[in-house]
Amino acid sequence: MATSDGKAVAESAPKRKITYRKTKARWHPSMQAIPVPGIRRMVNLAAEMDDVIHLSIGQPDLPTPKHVSDAMIDAIQAGQTGYTMDAGLPELLVALRDYYGNRYNRKLSTENILVTSGATEAMYLALSATAAPGRQFLVVDPSFLLYAPLIRMNGGEVKFIPTRAENGHQLDPDDIIKNITMRTFAVVLNSPNNPTGAVYPKSTIEAIVEECAFRGIQVFSDEVYDHLILDDEEYSSVLSCGTDLDHLMCISSFSKTYSMAGLRVGWVISSQGAIKKLRRYHMFTTSVANTPAQFAGVAALQGDQQCVRDMIDIYRERRDLTTDLVNQTPYMTGYKPGGGFFIFPDLPDHVDASDVCLRMLKETGVCTVPGDAFGEHCTNSIRISFSASSEKIQEAFERIIPWMKKQKF
Amino acid sequence: MATSDGKAVAESAPKRKITYRKTKARWHPSMQAIPVPGIRRMVNLAAEMDDVIHLSIGQPDLPTPKHVSDAMIDAIQAGQTGYTMDAGLPELLVALRDYYGNRYNRKLSTENILVTSGATEAMYLALSATAAPGRQFLVVDPSFLLYAPLIRMNGGEVKFIPTRAENGHQLDPDDIIKNITMRTFAVVLNSPNNPTGAVYPKSTIEAIVEECAFRGIQVFSDEVYDHLILDDEEYSSVLSCGTDLDHLMCISSFSKTYSMAGLRVGWVISSQGAIKKLRRYHMFTTSVANTPAQFAGVAALQGDQQCVRDMIDIYRERRDLTTDLVNQTPYMTGYKPGGGFFIFPDLPDHVDASDVCLRMLKETGVCTVPGDAFGEHCTNSIRISFSASSEKIQEAFERIIPWMKKQKF
Repeated sequence: MATSDGKAVAESAPKRKITYRKTKARWHPSMQAIPVPGIRRMVNLAAEMDDVIHLSIGQPDLPTPKHVSDAMIDAIQAGQTGYTMDAGLPELLVALRDYYGNRYNRKLSTENILVTSGATEAMYLALSATAAPGRQFLVVDPSFLLYAPLIRMNGGEVKFIPTRAENGHQLDPDDIIKNITMRTFAVVLNSPNNPTGAVYPKSTIEAIVEECAFRGIQVFSDEVYDHLILDDEEYSSVLSCGTDLDHLMCISSFSKTYSMAGLRVGWVISSQGAIKKLRRYHMFTTSVANTPAQFAGVAALQGDQQCVRDMIDIYRERRDLTTDLVNQTPYMTGYKPGGGFFIFPDLPDHVDASDVCLRMLKETGVCTVPGDAFGEHCTNSIRISFSASSEKIQEAFERIIPWMKKQKF
Repeated sequence: MATSDGKAVAESAPKRKITYRKTKARWHPSMQAIPVPGIRRMVNLAAEMDDVIHLSIGQPDLPTPKHVSDAMIDAIQAGQTGYTMDAGLPELLVALRDYYGNRYNRKLSTENILVTSGATEAMYLALSATAAPGRQFLVVDPSFLLYAPLIRMNGGEVKFIPTRAENGHQLDPDDIIKNITMRTFAVVLNSPNNPTGAVYPKSTIEAIVEECAFRGIQVFSDEVYDHLILDDEEYSSVLSCGTDLDHLMCISSFSKTYSMAGLRVGWVISSQGAIKKLRRYHMFTTSVANTPAQFAGVAALQGDQQCVRDMIDIYRERRDLTTDLVNQTPYMTGYKPGGGFFIFPDLPDHVDASDVCLRMLKETGVCTVPGDAFGEHCTNSIRISFSASSEKIQEAFERIIPWMKKQKF
């Protein structure tokens, strides 16, 4: 009976039932440092609305120059659809070396350059390969939304260095230098700055780069808007300073200069040792950049630069228009951005620009981006893009100005 | 005098001298987990030699189908050179949803899919967002060189599950299942496998996926060779199993199927929650994939698939040839790979294939890749690629066979 019982139990015991636990992927804690971008919040809402005017655009609205897209087409037709070398297409490395060498009168080798899938990957590699617990990064506030999360994801600490609309969002180099302590590992620069359009003069760049070189502090410089210089001044890259490359990483791309944002070709320039290290890392993040787009890049660098001058003329006209219109807008404190295609006016202190931008979108159909997407000290600012036609900009402010008049801040 | 002395001292005191410390970039410790790829070592040496036959190629040698490259050209001519949406080109997400839905008879939404800069970025996102200290990943050994370093970089632990040439490098699902412990976080699958070409039957995939679903273990499946199935069998994706997507990430790309390796478009398919998370991460690694290449992808999925069948016929012929030639080669233990374009024969145990490959390259001019690039239990194996013409393969073995005869292992 005992055996019979035992057997009966065994027979009636349920077979292991394949019930699937609803296990969610369990994420690395670093994922918590990635914000929901403020831009996305606005653009998603705008996507559900009719008759929206976008002054929220972060890429050129002008077309890619024809000789550049033709070069990409030629590459495809020639069957250039396989991998390039890991550091990039050799012809592009040579073109970049010559281009930067001439522009800043400095001797570079192709081994100083790594081609990446856009400046985003270049910045990702640079920051995530160096940020670590205990290391503090000084980051201009406001600045492009990529830097702080990438630093924090890897355990690094971000210290924001605020700039202000009333100073045209210029960076006082002493604000960087006096904040350098034993914990400081690096400084992240972005000139022309996104979202402010501020272009730092040579004296600012040089003071910071030389001080950092002296103290052995890394400088990461995001120079993707380096050709969108709207006033009659020479652009100052970190590469135009006399220091060597050991503590510099200069990042740029074709996206803004040649309206190639969707073609995803960027690069980082640094010491040969640093590039060797990043090159190996790059093979594990994306392996290589798009090949035909790299051929387009060669054509862009080696072709006639009239297309760039024409583009600058267009952006300058829009910048002047936008600056005027901002000045006419109640509650907005503007300034004249020297580069890029953004202006970042202040609203009165303590006004929540996030709330203002949302209401403005809902009530006027003009989409802008609230300041909190770009830092912590600019929650009362609004990013207005002039990567839109003058007609659109005019029309947008015809809605914004009367709406702002009705506000009571 | 005291004052005069004091003044003299002040005047002669050296001004702070701007001497630049040769500070090397100080890397995050995770960078140490990135190996110098064994492939690179061989290819660099080969680059300095004349008359090299490459059986080391990891990308298709066949051209991109014309209707696919034409679609890319059309997109460029239509001015499609700006960013796509962050998850990918909407048309491509729809095409992928329909394609996978039909192929595996499973209901998917576009929200289950994220388009990336190649399968490399997809795998990078998936592994680096989840690997963490204390989490063990079971990885088939040998397997593609990406997985183990990405897991280790993020503090995860790799446990290799060896397969053997004498079993055709088939994976016994019990070898996975019996190694699952409380520490096991995930299993990484790759069928067809690179470097072995082993294709796992449905019974293997299903046993592993169901066991993992039951135990709440993640499955990462690299399916980039999913169309290079050289025998008359149906391909088994993890998506063809009946489990839900919560614990699955399926990764693939256009690179192998449509000879688009240099166009860098891949994707990951998972639960909507996981995709939402990875999508935000993706914006910080590369932002979006190349836009014209995504249009090419739509054409590839929606166009005539005869190009794929033709490609398979060519690879099958070369596979048969290579398998025969390996069998004729002294000291090599071959098998018949069911997919991909690699075979991974053994040399006798305790032979250092790294040394053999280097000497073979130097003495015969045939470039292959030593097994140690792909794992820890295969240091006596060689990866031979048949992504080369039959004539080249024939010629290579005319050099290899007499050379191997002279070896004394």
